[in-house]
Formats: sequence, C-alpha cells, structure tokens
Amino acid sequence: MAAAVAEASTSKAYDELTGKLRELDALNGISGLLGWDELVMMPEGAVGSRGAQKSALAGVLYDKRTDKQLGGLLQQLKAAAGELDPVQAAVVRDASRSYTRETAVPKELAQRIAKLETDAYVAWVAARKESNFSKFAPFLQQWVDVNKQKAAAIDPAAPAYDVLLDDYEKGMTSARLDEIFAEVRKGLVPLLAELREKGSPPDDAWLAGSYSLDTQAALCREVALALGFDTNNGRLDVSVHPFTGGSHPTDVRMTTRFKEGDLTEGLTGAIHETGHALYEQGRNLGKEWEGLPVNSALSMGIHESQSLFWERMVGLSQPFAEWLLPLVSKHFPEFPKRSAADFYAAENVIKSPSLIRVEADEVTYPLHIILRYEIERGLIDGTIKVEDVPTIWNQKMKDYLGTAPEDDAKGCLQDVHWSAGLFGYFPTYSLGAMYACQIYEHAKQQLPELEQQVAAGNFTPLREWLNEHIHRKGSLHPSGDALMTAVTGNALQPQVFLAYLRSKYSKLYKLS
Amino acid sequence: MAAAVAEASTSKAYDELTGKLRELDALNGISGLLGWDELVMMPEGAVGSRGAQKSALAGVLYDKRTDKQLGGLLQQLKAAAGELDPVQAAVVRDASRSYTRETAVPKELAQRIAKLETDAYVAWVAARKESNFSKFAPFLQQWVDVNKQKAAAIDPAAPAYDVLLDDYEKGMTSARLDEIFAEVRKGLVPLLAELREKGSPPDDAWLAGSYSLDTQAALCREVALALGFDTNNGRLDVSVHPFTGGSHPTDVRMTTRFKEGDLTEGLTGAIHETGHALYEQGRNLGKEWEGLPVNSALSMGIHESQSLFWERMVGLSQPFAEWLLPLVSKHFPEFPKRSAADFYAAENVIKSPSLIRVEADEVTYPLHIILRYEIERGLIDGTIKVEDVPTIWNQKMKDYLGTAPEDDAKGCLQDVHWSAGLFGYFPTYSLGAMYACQIYEHAKQQLPELEQQVAAGNFTPLREWLNEHIHRKGSLHPSGDALMTAVTGNALQPQVFLAYLRSKYSKLYKLS
Repeated sequence: MAAAVAEASTSKAYDELTGKLRELDALNGISGLLGWDELVMMPEGAVGSRGAQKSALAGVLYDKRTDKQLGGLLQQLKAAAGELDPVQAAVVRDASRSYTRETAVPKELAQRIAKLETDAYVAWVAARKESNFSKFAPFLQQWVDVNKQKAAAIDPAAPAYDVLLDDYEKGMTSARLDEIFAEVRKGLVPLLAELREKGSPPDDAWLAGSYSLDTQAALCREVALALGFDTNNGRLDVSVHPFTGGSHPTDVRMTTRFKEGDLTEGLTGAIHETGHALYEQGRNLGKEWEGLPVNSALSMGIHESQSLFWERMVGLSQPFAEWLLPLVSKHFPEFPKRSAADFYAAENVIKSPSLIRVEADEVTYPLHIILRYEIERGLIDGTIKVEDVPTIWNQKMKDYLGTAPEDDAKGCLQDVHWSAGLFGYFPTYSLGAMYACQIYEHAKQQLPELEQQVAAGNFTPLREWLNEHIHRKGSLHPSGDALMTAVTGNALQPQVFLAYLRSKYSKLYKLS
Repeated sequence: MAAAVAEASTSKAYDELTGKLRELDALNGISGLLGWDELVMMPEGAVGSRGAQKSALAGVLYDKRTDKQLGGLLQQLKAAAGELDPVQAAVVRDASRSYTRETAVPKELAQRIAKLETDAYVAWVAARKESNFSKFAPFLQQWVDVNKQKAAAIDPAAPAYDVLLDDYEKGMTSARLDEIFAEVRKGLVPLLAELREKGSPPDDAWLAGSYSLDTQAALCREVALALGFDTNNGRLDVSVHPFTGGSHPTDVRMTTRFKEGDLTEGLTGAIHETGHALYEQGRNLGKEWEGLPVNSALSMGIHESQSLFWERMVGLSQPFAEWLLPLVSKHFPEFPKRSAADFYAAENVIKSPSLIRVEADEVTYPLHIILRYEIERGLIDGTIKVEDVPTIWNQKMKDYLGTAPEDDAKGCLQDVHWSAGLFGYFPTYSLGAMYACQIYEHAKQQLPELEQQVAAGNFTPLREWLNEHIHRKGSLHPSGDALMTAVTGNALQPQVFLAYLRSKYSKLYKLS
C-alpha cells in the first residue's frame, strides 16, 4: 500500500516535471527560431529590437530553468530513482544536471560573465586586427578567472576544466582527454612528417575553376536531398556562414554558402550541414521522448560526429566520388573529364603549411585542436600564464605541425572561442572526427554492401542505421563513450582513427 | 516636501511600469515573428511543434499581462494622474485598459472561448462547404453567448456590443456607429442605384490578359519602394494571403500575392500592404515612446485607413495612374497603349452584382459592412435570433445591394470572422475607408501640389505629412475620432466620404 502510494506520487511528480520541461523545450525552440531568423531573414535595422526580444526571452527562460518548483520535483524524483524506467531516469538525470548548473552560478557572477561576453569580443576583434595579443590578454585573464569561479560554484570537488568541458561534452574528463589526445599526437605527428617528406601529393590543380553560385546551390540542394534531408520538416537557405538551426526536429533549417572559385568547399560544407540536419531530423518523436531532455543531442562531439560522418567518412570517400562525379558534370557540363579516383584524390589533398584551423584537413586538424586543448587546460589549472600564450602557441605549432605563424593574428588570435569564454569547446571538434571514424568502421561491418550502396547513391540503409543507433537515442546514454560502447562495442578508440588516416593517406600519397 | 516625495515615487513607479511594458512589447514582437514565419517560411511538418511554441509563449504573455505587480503600479499611477505628461498619461490609460480587459475574463470562460475558436471554425468550414447554415448555427449561438458573458465581465454597465467593439476600435460606440452608418447607407444606396441605372460603365475589358507572376512581383516591389517601403527595416516576400506583420517598427514584413489573370488585384494588394507597412515603419522610436502602448497602432480602423489611403485615395486616383502607366509598360512591354485616363477608369469599374465582400469595390463595400454590423449588433443585443440570420442577410442584400445570394455559402457563411467570434471587427473596414478619405481631402488642402507630386512619382511630401500627423502619433489620442479631430479639425464626417464617391463615380460613369 505504502509502495503504491509512493509510486502514484512519483508518477504524478514525473508528469508535472515533463510538463515544465516541455514548456521549456517549446520556449527554447522559439529561441532557436529567433537565432535562425537573425542570421538568414532579419533586416539590418532590426538589430536593436531583436536584442531586446532575445533578452526578454532569455529572462523568461532563466526564470523557468531556475524555478524552485522544478528543483523540488527533481529532488523528489532523484530520491525515487528506483521507480523510473531508463528513459525517465535519463530525463531526471539531465534535467537535474541542467538545474544544478543554472542555479549554482550567483547572479553577480552571471552579470560579470554577460558583460565580459561583449567586452572581450570587442577587444579580441581589435587585437586581431592589429595582431597585438597584449590588447586581448587582460580579457583572456578575466575569462580564466570567471570560468574558474563558475566551475567552483558548480562543483568545487571536480577539476575546474572538467566542469567547463561538461557544458559541451558531458561525461568527458580531462584525464580521459589527456589519454586520447596523447595517443593521437603520437601517431599523427610522425604520419604528417612522413607524408610531407616522402609522399607524392595528388594533383588537384585541375579542380580550380569558376563555378557559378546558383549552379553550386542547385547541385548542393540535390546532394542534400539525396542524402535524406527532409524539406517537409526543414528548410535549406543560403547564409553568410553555413549553419544548422531551427526550432524543433520537425523544423530543421540548414544553410549553405558558396564561393565562385572553390567547388569543394561549398560541397563539403553542404554535406557537413546535412549531417547535422539529419541528426536533428532523426530524433525520436514518440510520446515518451518528445520535448524532453532525453531527446536532445547528446553532446557537441556527437553532433559533430554526425556532420563529419557525412562530410568526411562518406563525402570524401572514393565510393561517394563515383556517385558525385556524374552529378557534378550534369550541373557543370564543362567540368574536366577525369576519373572518380582522380576526383577523390584531388578532394583529399593535405593543406600545407597548415596555419589556420578552419582551413585545415582531416590529417592536420586534430593537431590544431590538441594544441588549443593543452593551452586552455594549462590556463585553467594554472600551469600556463596568459602572457605566455603566444610563445607556447608558436612553439607547439612548430612541434606538431612543423610551421609557425608570422604573427598572432594568424596564431593565437585566430579563433573567436576564447573571446567568448568557451573553454572546453575545442576538443569536441576532434572527438567528433574520431567518433565518426569509429562509427563508420563499425557500420561497414554491419552493412556489408555499404560502399556499393554509396557508390550507387543509395544512402537509405546507412541513414536508417544511423537513425536507429544514434539519432533516435538522443541523450539516453550519459556520455559519448557510453554511446560509442552501445553502438560499436567499445568506448572511443583513437587508434581506429589513426589507422584510418594512415591507410587512406598512405595510398593517396603513395608511401611505400 | 510631501509633493516632491510623491513625485519621486510616481516617477519610480512609472519607470517600473515601462520596464514591464517594454518586456511585454518585446515578447509580443516575438509572437509577431512566429506568426509571420508560420505563414511565410515554416515547413509543413512543423505545424504541431509551432502550436506548442505559440501556446508556451501565450502562457508567458498571459502571466505577465495579468501580473499583480503590474496592476498595483497602474493603480498607483492612475491615482497620480496629475503628475503625468500627455505621453505618460496615454501609456497609463492604455496599459490600464489592457490590464482590465485581460484580468476581467474568468479562467473558465477563457478556456471555453479557446475551445470554441477551434470547434466553431471547423463547423464553419463544413457548413460553408455544404452551404448549410444550420450546421454552423449552434456555434454562432455559443459565440453570441460567450461574447455577452465576456463583455459583462469587462464592463457590466456598457452595452455589450460596445465592449466588444472596443477590442478593435477603441473609443467607438454603437450609438456613434448607428449615426455614421445610417448616413452612409442613406447616401450610398441611391448612388449605387443611379450608377447602375443611368451610368455608363468604363471599359475595362482591355485590361484582361496574362501577366507573368515574377514580372508582377518585380513591378510591385518597385511600386512599394517608390511609395517609401524601407527594406532596411523590413522585408517583402510572397505568401498565399497578402498581409503585413513582423516583430517591431524596425522589422516590418509585408507579403504580396499575384494571379496570372489579374494585374489590378496584385497591384492594389501590394499598395494596400505598403500602406499598412508605412504606418508600422513610421512609428515614433524616441526614448519616451519606444516599446510602450502609446506607440501602438491606434486601432484597426486607423490601421486600415493607412492601407486604404494608399490603395484607394492615392493608388486608384488619376494622378497615380499617370505615374504608374509607364512603369507597367516598362515591366510589360506588350501592355496596351492606352491613356492614363483609360487606365484610371478601367481600374475603378464597380463590380456587379456585388455578392462577396472581399471582391467588392469602394462603392459597394460599405454596404456589405453595414449589413454585417446591423446583424451582429442585433445578435448581441438580442433583437436578432441566430436562426433568422440567413433570411435577414438575404433581405438586406436585396435592399442595400439590389441582389441576393443563391445560397448561404455565398451569403451569410462567406466570411470567417463570426466563426472566430469576432464581433465588432467588420465596422473597422469601412471606418478605415472613411478615415482615409477625410485625411486625403485634408492633405490636398495642406499640400497644394499633392496631385502633381503623385503624378510625378514624388510621394515623399505626402508620406512625411502622414508620418508627422498620424504614424508617429501612435496611440496618443484616445480614439479614431480624436485623431481625426487633431489631424483634420473634425471628427469622422461620413458626408466627406459620400461626396468623394458621388463626385468620382459621377464623372467615371458619366452621370448628367
């Protein structure tokens, strides 16, 4: 009898909780729409009024996220954890985590952070323009200080960097990252040196040309639709920076961008965003999941794994080149008559020297990330001083990538992230690449016809496999490693990624 | 000393009030953006998730609009009315009015109204499809009942119809409407009969043709920009139903629609929406006004006066035809070579028989409105029974317009308004037409070169005059009549409208 009463009360509390969480989800969706509209549709004159709208909505969201009743329900449900099924348990786990993080930060600190977001960005823009790190340094120091305070407020027992990392890659720790990145660095630095010293770069000069923007947009639209982007539940527009946003899995809005002189960049960008969009559109819309935290993207790393899966593992593979080449020729009849092998090789040339992260290829990119990770971790744990960042940056560039920037604008001032106080964000890019690789290698075993299907433009079996094992699982698992274990049988294994790179590029660069 | 303390406390209360009102304005702006997006951009699959978003935002808005602290501040400021300047007084007046209306309706009644909005619409669609009024009658009866209850909750001392009317045309009463509409009917019924019996309709057959939709869109875009639509503070898109929405005076979004077989409809529609948009974009963005109720549109009638001002008073005038004709020929080189006088005459042909309100011209339109006003007023004050609506409708059609519909689908079921419970909305269409006419006649006196300027495509002096006297005044005046008095020296005078129609159509129809 007492147990039945307890269960009834738990079930009532869970219903109340989901009501509140679904309201929050709807308001978050509105916030997503405002963001998309601002970048794609909003007239310039509305910058000020949109700021007031975003601020009003942020206030509403803050009040609802830190609502004491919500806290009470979570308290009650955590105490009754034994009565919850795995989906309910994931809902309570993630809602509690968010509630703790939202309520832990004192108002005064939140206000300092908000102010710093504006001030530090302005300072970074000016410092980069003059390539003068000292102008940005005081703001970077403030970001280090407030981030340490924020981390201490949330969880004084954990390493500060781990607490920050948890915002972007939940369940990941710096100890685990150290292990992963040390192994990647150990494999990648010699591979890169070998490719540069002994390899013969494929010919990509023939890809140069002038490609009409409208034709590129039509080609990329056809590619996105072929991969499975669903325009009944989304939109495809052109914007200054390509991104995927929207308000809900039934309203996913991806954008693309094209340059006349570069066919590959527009194509890989469109395929990348399609990967993000398929993850969003593939979410579970069943009654138990819809609008709840369990149905959110698991992490930034997992989101990035889906974009990089399609961009790199599929889109930059030879089977894909076989399917893509006739399509390119259909849209650009004057496109050179070369083989799919030539097209594949040309798309995969390693950029050298690799100074700028956003222009890097899949071999050099992880080294850019490892360098940033080591520096930002050192800043937070106190082993690196702000003033030493440029020297350390340049030394690591030489050690890992064999080249150093001529100035800080092309060096430690190149990325916006630190100016926005984002510490723990960079690692997710490379975690995404490694997750993607391990998932792809496993998918090849599960779908023995995969490469033939890709070459024939039949992406449905692969998309459905991803949908079943990853998209629909949302945040059911507590970490990227846990999801990887559920999908592939193993936590993230950097050696899978290293083996893939070595094998692919040894062939492409004709290493003996 | 006591007075100074009182003033300080009033000024503090006013600041608190405006903080709350500006937050509400920002959230209302978001609501406007959601509405625009739904009609212009949203993918079909997102209908359900958008519903949840709108409902969550509506809940937030309701809580903030009925917030007890807001009520307390308004109470305090009404008591200190003597210390407020005219702008502040208008803010407190309109905010109090909204607060009273929002808080008066009991929750149970609000829920019945929300349910009826869905049920009655579904019933109306089905009834109209079958042309079977009896299927809609029970829902119309429920709307009459709940609207009377709503009116009694808001102000039991005032006639129920006046309380409802106040939602759309504040400061207007049924006594005043009786007076206005009786005069219009008395003048218009014989004028229409005379034009039909003795007039020679101008030739408009030569306007028939096939006009490419893209070219119409380009032409109308050029017209909207020439009239002064500002794309730095707005957007112009194509949608299924033309409308003007957006989120703020700096973010005004108008849409147009075109039919291949009808050049005039697309043009007048685009000019109509431009008029609405200019009113919105022209609002006062000074510190004292911005984001406050004093800066809202005064009423639906005044909003409609601005669209009809440009559509009819300017857009369907002979000087405008002189400017427009070469522009039409530029976009459509095969357009017949006729005079501006012929073009003007062809655009102004009276539709006959006039059965459908939305297809009516400026002579017959007011009679459609008067008929609806008389019926809906009778329903609310109990002098007309729901079951008698079709008979009364058809009789009034014969009496006022000389024709009766063959069935209810083309008769009393033609409009969506009553299915949505909108009683008091119809009159604003014709009030708008009359306001527009009186403003135009006055503007001609104030701007002696007006017609030459219009013929030359110089719309700036007129737009600036409207901006100064109407757009920037927002809701400073308590009613349409008060604004008309401030602008033209007189409250609304239906005889000005009647004289305009008689003079214009006597010439067009060659009455002796």
